[in-house]
Amino acid sequence: MHKKGRATKIFVLMIYDVGEERVNKILKIGRKYLNWIQNSVLEGELTPATFESLKHEVRKVIKDDHDSVIFYIWRTEHYTSREIMGLEKGSREIFI
Amino acid sequence: MHKKGRATKIFVLMIYDVGEERVNKILKIGRKYLNWIQNSVLEGELTPATFESLKHEVRKVIKDDHDSVIFYIWRTEHYTSREIMGLEKGSREIFI
Repeated sequence: MHKKGRATKIFVLMIYDVGEERVNKILKIGRKYLNWIQNSVLEGELTPATFESLKHEVRKVIKDDHDSVIFYIWRTEHYTSREIMGLEKGSREIFI
Repeated sequence: MHKKGRATKIFVLMIYDVGEERVNKILKIGRKYLNWIQNSVLEGELTPATFESLKHEVRKVIKDDHDSVIFYIWRTEHYTSREIMGLEKGSREIFI
């Protein structure tokens, strides 16, 4: 019922809080896979395998005792909405 | 089928990117309603009415031409998971 042929992709939200010297690297990795939304936030649709690649790249860069990267993953965007107040700084083309 | 008696609450993720002089105010408002997770990220379960109150308070503080606050809202957390890499800076008690 909730598959609708898009079940092979997952919707990923990535939020990072990393040391200044790693911000550019993490943002660059994130943008290879996702769309930049705001500040330290990216989102997009990925296959599970591509998501694993993203995590693998992030894992190589971050310092576990200092940085923090959160991924929210959901199987369908049908249950989700997004509201933005103020400036819309990034792209929202991914949200269809 | 997807209501399960919790349909009265929604799961809210709030991410803010505001001028430095308004960070404390926004964080204070956010913490009245949600749990702090990381950097400029809070999350929690709210009733729709409480969510309206949160937005009302935020709207009074932010400068529309400078700040940005994003709310992701979903009706159920059953479709969602969260993965954290590195430090877990905030509370995750809300995620059950």
